[in-house]
Amino acid sequence: MVIWFTGLSSAGKTTIAEAVEKQLCQAGLAVQVLDGDQMRRSLCRDLGFSNEDRIENIRRIGIVASLLERNGIIVLVAAISPFRQARNEVRKLCDAFIEVYVNAPIDVCEKRDQEGLYAKARRGEITHVTGIDSPYEPPLQPDVECRTDREDVPECVNKVLRATQDRFPLALDN
Amino acid sequence: MVIWFTGLSSAGKTTIAEAVEKQLCQAGLAVQVLDGDQMRRSLCRDLGFSNEDRIENIRRIGIVASLLERNGIIVLVAAISPFRQARNEVRKLCDAFIEVYVNAPIDVCEKRDQEGLYAKARRGEITHVTGIDSPYEPPLQPDVECRTDREDVPECVNKVLRATQDRFPLALDN
Repeated sequence: MVIWFTGLSSAGKTTIAEAVEKQLCQAGLAVQVLDGDQMRRSLCRDLGFSNEDRIENIRRIGIVASLLERNGIIVLVAAISPFRQARNEVRKLCDAFIEVYVNAPIDVCEKRDQEGLYAKARRGEITHVTGIDSPYEPPLQPDVECRTDREDVPECVNKVLRATQDRFPLALDN
Repeated sequence: MVIWFTGLSSAGKTTIAEAVEKQLCQAGLAVQVLDGDQMRRSLCRDLGFSNEDRIENIRRIGIVASLLERNGIIVLVAAISPFRQARNEVRKLCDAFIEVYVNAPIDVCEKRDQEGLYAKARRGEITHVTGIDSPYEPPLQPDVECRTDREDVPECVNKVLRATQDRFPLALDN
């Protein structure tokens, strides 16, 4: 199973993915998180932030995720992955693909601004920032939507885990 | 554990890797083969055959191999991987790395020429063919050396399996 967290920078993708990881590991399942930022420092370090490079970035992470999935690992991908078509291509590669839209309004993300990206973009120091001058195409029918501006982390985690119940029944809080 | 088969095209890397895979699977172990040709059609499809691109190819396969290894999968990589330094970089990424030098003289490889590469190179239709106009740096101290011009497949497989015995004791034929 591949659980794919998509959304703007600072929407909460990694936070939720890591909290889900914790729950699944505690249940004795084999889990691997693929974090977009980490992948950009390793597998995808040759890529920039043009639309073309972003699509290639999603493609490569998708290939690795599907390889891990084929080996019985639950893969949690946390990556902006702004393009709908590219995400749908990954879905085709996977056996079970759960798309989680980690959704917070951009002004909320901008207030969090964990990596200082938005501030740099506003100061004109960087370009190609998703939601500012680079597009984000939200999922039209996400399997799960987490509204991180009004749902806390445990709520979001439970929503995700409920969506995995068919395959991995866990004891949930609610 | 990552078992990395390096050698010229048509030296027998994939043949031995797949035979090793069969043995390990029969022993109930989780195994994934990463074949260089397949990787070039998927994860590395943007890469060509310049030295730089070959190094990047090895680097990416190495990252994926180490990710799988971290999840308890035995990874068998069959890729020309002509550059010593690049292979050594992968070794550093892995927990246990077994370098298998699949060694046959180039004239033997050229007679087999499974993909018709050497014939095309001789006809001047392609360039950047390892062993013809692109370098191959053999391992200086391979963990295993298979001389596929004078050892048959079962012999080679046994040599490889013997090198894995510390971690995965299997019943071997000899």
